[in-house]
Amino acid sequence: MKRASFEDVDCSVAQTLEQVGEWWTLLIIRDLFRPKNLHRFEEIQADLGIARNILSDRLARLVAAGIVEKRRYQERPERFEYHLTPKGVDLMPVIVTLMAWGDKYGGWDAGPPVLLHHTDCGHDTHAVIACAECGGELTPRNLRGRVADWVKAPAGRP
Amino acid sequence: MKRASFEDVDCSVAQTLEQVGEWWTLLIIRDLFRPKNLHRFEEIQADLGIARNILSDRLARLVAAGIVEKRRYQERPERFEYHLTPKGVDLMPVIVTLMAWGDKYGGWDAGPPVLLHHTDCGHDTHAVIACAECGGELTPRNLRGRVADWVKAPAGRP
Repeated sequence: MKRASFEDVDCSVAQTLEQVGEWWTLLIIRDLFRPKNLHRFEEIQADLGIARNILSDRLARLVAAGIVEKRRYQERPERFEYHLTPKGVDLMPVIVTLMAWGDKYGGWDAGPPVLLHHTDCGHDTHAVIACAECGGELTPRNLRGRVADWVKAPAGRP
Repeated sequence: MKRASFEDVDCSVAQTLEQVGEWWTLLIIRDLFRPKNLHRFEEIQADLGIARNILSDRLARLVAAGIVEKRRYQERPERFEYHLTPKGVDLMPVIVTLMAWGDKYGGWDAGPPVLLHHTDCGHDTHAVIACAECGGELTPRNLRGRVADWVKAPAGRP
């Protein structure tokens, strides 16, 4: 069965999932954010225990989407590393908010498996979301969505 | 083919995706965040254009995970609405960071399809991530991850 595509949906969440929502893809991106040693096919494959054909497919899609770039590190035979592009690095907020929720609800008896350290303030921390305009925290109480004028509202859409 | 499970992976990103990473699931959660009219099976089904059996499966998983609760709104015949629990509402940062990335990279000629308004400061805005300790913005430059002491590092993991 062909998977449904979200490409034609007027929704930025759907557009993001269209590019990175496949099973495994966000974990591959997570690996590419790590400081070292997780940029080569064999390293990512070993870290995730993912089937080689699936990893190959996911990396090819990420390269096609401009989220990951291949860098040649050896000529004969040709070998490549995979690195996040700026578009890929811009997914960091998605990764750390997924992580913050999993830290809270993952059922970790001994605390989260990975700790985030904010070097600017010196604390171990987790991510919250803030307003790009005023810096204040965004919550369900102070955030309102409204559909842009150019979007033709389908029947039943608020 | 049975999909691989991330359940045994010592990673909070993987744990979150284990619960909400299925295709369609985050869009269902997005619908449940909307202010009105998207809490009944028929409404969500019509909004997403999703197959009924898939929506039924995804909602059942979300209820089992404690992310969504069923509320009976009619007795004969019995009918239910679906609402986010507090655990579900805690996914808002994931939804709005997915949205912010899709706003930037979705290729919207006329601007993003949905605008977020921060009622505290009165601006249309988008979400950035901030440190829960100091409130400063988190960036790839000022954030460092370190594996907790209790995690037994598999070979090759940094």
